[in-house]
Amino acid sequence: MQPYNVSNSGAFIEEFIVQPYQPGSLSNLNFSVKDCIDVKDKITGFGNPTWRSTHPKASANAICVELLLSQGAKCVGKTVTDEFTYSLLGENHFYGTPLNPRCPDRVPGGSSSGSASSVACDLVDFALGTDTGGSIRVPASNCGIYGYRSSHGRIPTAGVIPLAPSLDTVGVLAKNMQTLKLAASALMGGINLCNNPSANYKIAVVEEIFAACDPNIQKSIYQHLDKNFKEYTVIRLSDIMSADVTLAWLFDLYVLLHSCELWSVHGAWVEAVKPELGPIADYNFNCIAKLANRGLLADGMKKREWFAKKIQSYLKKDTLLCFPTVPETAPKKGFYNQNPAARTSGTYFQNLIGINALAGLSKSPQITIPITDSSAIPVGISFLAGQNQDEFLIETISSWILD
Amino acid sequence: MQPYNVSNSGAFIEEFIVQPYQPGSLSNLNFSVKDCIDVKDKITGFGNPTWRSTHPKASANAICVELLLSQGAKCVGKTVTDEFTYSLLGENHFYGTPLNPRCPDRVPGGSSSGSASSVACDLVDFALGTDTGGSIRVPASNCGIYGYRSSHGRIPTAGVIPLAPSLDTVGVLAKNMQTLKLAASALMGGINLCNNPSANYKIAVVEEIFAACDPNIQKSIYQHLDKNFKEYTVIRLSDIMSADVTLAWLFDLYVLLHSCELWSVHGAWVEAVKPELGPIADYNFNCIAKLANRGLLADGMKKREWFAKKIQSYLKKDTLLCFPTVPETAPKKGFYNQNPAARTSGTYFQNLIGINALAGLSKSPQITIPITDSSAIPVGISFLAGQNQDEFLIETISSWILD
Repeated sequence: MQPYNVSNSGAFIEEFIVQPYQPGSLSNLNFSVKDCIDVKDKITGFGNPTWRSTHPKASANAICVELLLSQGAKCVGKTVTDEFTYSLLGENHFYGTPLNPRCPDRVPGGSSSGSASSVACDLVDFALGTDTGGSIRVPASNCGIYGYRSSHGRIPTAGVIPLAPSLDTVGVLAKNMQTLKLAASALMGGINLCNNPSANYKIAVVEEIFAACDPNIQKSIYQHLDKNFKEYTVIRLSDIMSADVTLAWLFDLYVLLHSCELWSVHGAWVEAVKPELGPIADYNFNCIAKLANRGLLADGMKKREWFAKKIQSYLKKDTLLCFPTVPETAPKKGFYNQNPAARTSGTYFQNLIGINALAGLSKSPQITIPITDSSAIPVGISFLAGQNQDEFLIETISSWILD
Repeated sequence: MQPYNVSNSGAFIEEFIVQPYQPGSLSNLNFSVKDCIDVKDKITGFGNPTWRSTHPKASANAICVELLLSQGAKCVGKTVTDEFTYSLLGENHFYGTPLNPRCPDRVPGGSSSGSASSVACDLVDFALGTDTGGSIRVPASNCGIYGYRSSHGRIPTAGVIPLAPSLDTVGVLAKNMQTLKLAASALMGGINLCNNPSANYKIAVVEEIFAACDPNIQKSIYQHLDKNFKEYTVIRLSDIMSADVTLAWLFDLYVLLHSCELWSVHGAWVEAVKPELGPIADYNFNCIAKLANRGLLADGMKKREWFAKKIQSYLKKDTLLCFPTVPETAPKKGFYNQNPAARTSGTYFQNLIGINALAGLSKSPQITIPITDSSAIPVGISFLAGQNQDEFLIETISSWILD
């Protein structure tokens, strides 16, 4: 592989070294930190220059950073994020597009774009990211690496700038599953993750999600499943819930909750400071500010709790949902920026957000594993476990994979 | 009862009317909002004048406020909170001490002091509060009203200023259980709470907590239990966990996690802005900023997850822990302000924080019910259910109480 460095990857917004507090399970591993997560004495820039210039330096590390330093990992810098962590593309108007080394003409995916790039370019062993609606899983899939979104409430978010708090999570991007497992263990307070989990798990493939994906992706993932698993069942979300639960239903519900929460969290700052915004952030904030009917929110909350309960009672402690992480391979760089109408006229974003809403709406953990489609373009195969079944998810997937 | 109004109660920091969006289950009920929760077009003051003067008006209601307006409730104003929601006393150096109408010479308790006072003074039907380490339960107990702390993750916190995110929750203070039930239902997205829950519940009285409380409180609560319940078991936390789990252990663990998270969330602002602080906030922030060993955090996180799992596996879906909400009746006004050394030399705060840490560390919901000690001073009897068993907790308690 060609050698990358900080400057030609575009992954980092700032380089520095924070030494670990002490040796531990992560000794000799280094990591990067998405620029919405506090590192002491650095400004957390949140992907926007006005935010950076109007906020003080962090007075302490975010809790997740502390947990890694306590286990012997070394922090080597902050990575580029999409503006306000609010996009799945990975093209930041102000700070550029971190390199996707597997397909340099394609976007890395976002919003943990620089974190994914820093891992994929082999500049770090793993990276901290955040995932509200896909911001770890999508760039991991696009860049051909592993990505882990934690259960809501499992990894502390103190010191992480919120986006939509009931959906926000902290997680890990890593080149291999062993490193992901070590980092996740540290982030959950140093829990012990076993190496020989029970083999009594079930895999349920979600038919609607496959059907919404590019045929090349469907084929590759089914080949992977057939090769690696003796059995799996194929289910429909509509069967385990009700007929109206479709990807479009997930998309609508996610966008409603996300938009309302985001405006409650950041609307005051946007209105008071009137920051300089890139075109995507400008468009997004305009839509959200004008969101007419926040009165739909109550119904949305009720749907979300119903959905979460249904999923949890189906998954219990032994079932993994399986589906493609993304409906299409990574878009070409610039395409959606140069064709803004295509963002809403096409199905890419609707399906991408719908698929990635499954974990957030059900508060479940998810891991994406890198494979490739028939043209050798990276895509991810995802496994989602019940809420708080992070140990089960990580241990089971680790047991399959010998890095 | 003597008539109270907004000015002689000291409960409100600002009065206004926000009409409900539409009729609903809360029609004809009005509510107040703790001043750490956003109401559109109002500054959220967070109990500190420098915070108020350096922050813009909220551009949207917090999600919890939206959910109440959507169900027909009318918002009538913002209530006084302890500075930065960070005290259990209810005496704000800048904004005064909201009246505890049941014992005007005693503190109302905090930090949802004005919310509790507005309910106890009959100025509203219910109030929104937040509870990180007792901030709903303690003032509810002191003022002789009902208080509900929700499971972590059940009621959205978007639009609520965070304190220690892994411990922060939104909840309700109310004069009667029926109103609490209606408001809680709305805050969980309008879920249906049944009127005839299963009678197959178990009550487990926590001996260590009783032993740490004033004998008058112990006696009153045991009388209440003996009168109302045919059977309950007496357990020791140390028996269902391990011998080192004591109230002091809970206190130490809570303070560690709370302090680290709080400094990660607000340290940068405090250091950059150097706000005018009352003596309690000044003392607290000094302690936290100097907290030497954030390296203990990883071990604390691990202990917390272990503790939560142990409690959850004991409680399952049918058991309620029962204990006094507070170890002593409300302190006299001014006592701890005039005797700051007594804050650490005495056992009141250590026991109070230890008792109230149980819910936060285990992510569990808790309801405090008002009774009185033998001198007719209000105290609360608390019931705590498993995480996400909010429905079970509320339905079961409602079934006992005919307001």
